[in-house]
Amino acid sequence: MRNDSNWTTDRRTLLAGAAASAAALLAPAKAFAADGLDAVRKAVAANHDEAVKRLQDWIRLPSIAAENKAMPEGAAYMAKLATDAGFQHAEIVPTRGHPGVFATLDAGAKRTMGIYFMYDVKQYDPAEWSSPPIEARLLDKEGFGQVVMGRGAVNQKGPQATFLAALHGMKKAGKKLPVNLVLVAEGEEEIGSPHFSDIVIKPNVLAALKKCVGVIIPTGWQSPATGGVEINLGAKGVVEFELVASGEKWGRGPKEDLHSSQKARVDSPAWRLVAALSTLVTPDGNTPLVDGFMDKVRPLTPRERELILLASKNLNEADAKRAAGVTHWIDDMSWEAALERLAAQPTINIEGLVSGYTGPGGKTILPSRAVAKIDMRLVPNMTRDDSIAKLRAHLDKRGFKDIEVNVSGGYDPTETPEDSDLVRAMQATYKRFNVPTTLYPRLAGSWPGVTFTGAPVNLPAGQFGLGHGSGAHAPNEYFVIKSSNPKVLGMDEAAVAFVAFLEEIAKS
Amino acid sequence: MRNDSNWTTDRRTLLAGAAASAAALLAPAKAFAADGLDAVRKAVAANHDEAVKRLQDWIRLPSIAAENKAMPEGAAYMAKLATDAGFQHAEIVPTRGHPGVFATLDAGAKRTMGIYFMYDVKQYDPAEWSSPPIEARLLDKEGFGQVVMGRGAVNQKGPQATFLAALHGMKKAGKKLPVNLVLVAEGEEEIGSPHFSDIVIKPNVLAALKKCVGVIIPTGWQSPATGGVEINLGAKGVVEFELVASGEKWGRGPKEDLHSSQKARVDSPAWRLVAALSTLVTPDGNTPLVDGFMDKVRPLTPRERELILLASKNLNEADAKRAAGVTHWIDDMSWEAALERLAAQPTINIEGLVSGYTGPGGKTILPSRAVAKIDMRLVPNMTRDDSIAKLRAHLDKRGFKDIEVNVSGGYDPTETPEDSDLVRAMQATYKRFNVPTTLYPRLAGSWPGVTFTGAPVNLPAGQFGLGHGSGAHAPNEYFVIKSSNPKVLGMDEAAVAFVAFLEEIAKS
Repeated sequence: MRNDSNWTTDRRTLLAGAAASAAALLAPAKAFAADGLDAVRKAVAANHDEAVKRLQDWIRLPSIAAENKAMPEGAAYMAKLATDAGFQHAEIVPTRGHPGVFATLDAGAKRTMGIYFMYDVKQYDPAEWSSPPIEARLLDKEGFGQVVMGRGAVNQKGPQATFLAALHGMKKAGKKLPVNLVLVAEGEEEIGSPHFSDIVIKPNVLAALKKCVGVIIPTGWQSPATGGVEINLGAKGVVEFELVASGEKWGRGPKEDLHSSQKARVDSPAWRLVAALSTLVTPDGNTPLVDGFMDKVRPLTPRERELILLASKNLNEADAKRAAGVTHWIDDMSWEAALERLAAQPTINIEGLVSGYTGPGGKTILPSRAVAKIDMRLVPNMTRDDSIAKLRAHLDKRGFKDIEVNVSGGYDPTETPEDSDLVRAMQATYKRFNVPTTLYPRLAGSWPGVTFTGAPVNLPAGQFGLGHGSGAHAPNEYFVIKSSNPKVLGMDEAAVAFVAFLEEIAKS
Repeated sequence: MRNDSNWTTDRRTLLAGAAASAAALLAPAKAFAADGLDAVRKAVAANHDEAVKRLQDWIRLPSIAAENKAMPEGAAYMAKLATDAGFQHAEIVPTRGHPGVFATLDAGAKRTMGIYFMYDVKQYDPAEWSSPPIEARLLDKEGFGQVVMGRGAVNQKGPQATFLAALHGMKKAGKKLPVNLVLVAEGEEEIGSPHFSDIVIKPNVLAALKKCVGVIIPTGWQSPATGGVEINLGAKGVVEFELVASGEKWGRGPKEDLHSSQKARVDSPAWRLVAALSTLVTPDGNTPLVDGFMDKVRPLTPRERELILLASKNLNEADAKRAAGVTHWIDDMSWEAALERLAAQPTINIEGLVSGYTGPGGKTILPSRAVAKIDMRLVPNMTRDDSIAKLRAHLDKRGFKDIEVNVSGGYDPTETPEDSDLVRAMQATYKRFNVPTTLYPRLAGSWPGVTFTGAPVNLPAGQFGLGHGSGAHAPNEYFVIKSSNPKVLGMDEAAVAFVAFLEEIAKS
């Protein structure tokens, strides 16, 4: 998932305050007595050490697409994890980029559930970590209990390993799964899933997906404050790209960095990039000005407005600001307006700027090249391709034909109907575990759900899972193994919840 | 000197073409027969190995102010070099930054010459070098002869060691120097000489300088094409600083990098920096728009225009473009206009941009901080302090009070009259060595000459020297030891030329 710790933290605080409105919650441990899950609960507990080791071993094999690191190995390991968990068929699926994995588990059930996994992880810098990022050490984290710390712990190996633990638990308990499973995994999620559709349009993969009720990505995002989770009825799309101004392409300015005294008579690609950037948004940086960028934006529906209004009443603004590390929203807008923008506002964001000398102090050069790393977040009915085409036309029209737009990844927005069997099964399962839920129209972050919700697959798709972790894309990423917080499930009970979810799907 | 290889290369090509107008040049080796310098020439030759080793040892002790690397050691070594060369007095001069060195050599002469040294060097990355940058290896370089390769080889240890070789040669020849010497050295040239005036205003230093005819920094910038050199009647001033936009100072936007999905409701320091930058120059990046920035600019004098016109006729535009790596000047202006801008146009240049994620590909963050590294080049009568004050007022007026202006170094422009004894001695010496010279109103690069030309010292000051090296601030910096190019002097003969120069000063 394209969420870093801040976002995860923010999601948590989105839910802070919901506790107050969720009266007289039972502690989860008491809630599921006699829930029909005791046999699998016992089996999962018996498998505990093995399940934790499986997660640790996975973290110890970091596949990083951006660095072309251990990609074939990661795919092969993913296929093995599937086979070990009971999938009868598992195959590596080559793409124009890094390979994916497709696996099926036929339980002889009436209904079939789709599962999305990512086997890649975000880059990391060991120097920033308090525990080595690929050692996957088990540590005590105050207020949380025993956690595994390592790159991918919550994003997404921990929740995915928890799902696998559910399957191993069912096997151990001698039970058939209540649904068949179709697993589709990719290794390029962290670079914007550029070849994910290569996998799902493969005829046997597409045929298998077509039988599914829907698709989930396993998550573990319970709020430590309330135990609550959010059900998002979709997610924004995203496009990531670099804008590059260079003497090479421009035909003006230097081809290599030049002494800065030459600025008197030589053009500057860095100033050119600044000029181009300044046309993309309003001077406050908050409203896209790319010609036609907003044309396809579909206004919020009355139901979406209602959900946002509800969320604004349940959720705590101060906590959300604290989690984001800010003291003001844009334009000092109201809490409800901030929640609405989060769901409904397309954005053009600078992820990074790089040009010339970037070390300590200065260096008197006129750089030959300047790069802005940008992401755009898209809402229905915007598309990735249309947004990039509009950007290109916008730049061309202003004479910036030489400025390169190098897209590295991205996908369209995704939406799943509130009245789908998938969302109903999520709600039923969370209710069964006494977990407070908030329905929100659209995740402001992005995931490649559109590959499932869009043509040709056309399925509902979303996040599901219990348990807790944080620190995605950040140092000291962790996932709770044994919870000391009564509001949050440990890994074993989160695995049991996946079984409960599959039962709800079977009933749907 | 704040010149990198491009600039040095450019200086060379500024002179390319001058050869054509300098008819029937004698090869230097033949030119100075019976010039009265034979005794010292013989002594310098006898000292050759020792002089080269002195330079190599110096390169092997790189002092880098930006990295606080070997600064006290560098100052102590500088003082020892002075003492060894015959300075009777040498002292370390503490400053509010890194120490300088002050030394005097009393030859009982009537006239006294000031010498400026810098003992620091620019940062380097060994990975970029073909020969280890602090091993100071002796190599054959095609078309040049034997060179020493290493950081500081031409900027400025090679030319300075050549000057020291002149003093050792005079000692060996049993001759008294024709002038007394006052040496002032600093270790912070490469960071903009922030504390150099601390050294020269020390009462004993100032008193000694006051006795001088003028001050030179030893250089070795002969054109390999023509053997020619430039006499610059001044140099632009420079200010280097960082513009920093941050959530911390702004009170808006994140205090730490945040997930980029939050852009929908959180302000962006990176966009704020772009907005502020876009007010500083015209959209083409070529004309400063800082309020009042140009107010103090003194127009070119008729003589300055005449010198530029002469230069435009002598010098080869195609060579200058090739050396700069450009195919067009700004606005496709004429060669004369380009030379005029080089001398007369104040600039605001982006040296570097740094914000957020700067690695390969993208990372979906909203950075908490964005930095532009800027240099401004100043012409008379602009000053560093006034220019920074104008920038601050300009930003404040537009609501950018939170954007930090962190000045790291710089100094005012410097000027030396064409009719000064110093310039006349330079011209006479170059003529004696049959070196074609070009008078140019103002070096577009910068050096802290204003510390000498401005109050309270008020002396003529400029660059002087023969020989050749290149690659300042770049990898594979070199300085010619034994020249295979008949137009360019080797280190020994360049040392002899310093003696000749001191003789001309004595006559002045």
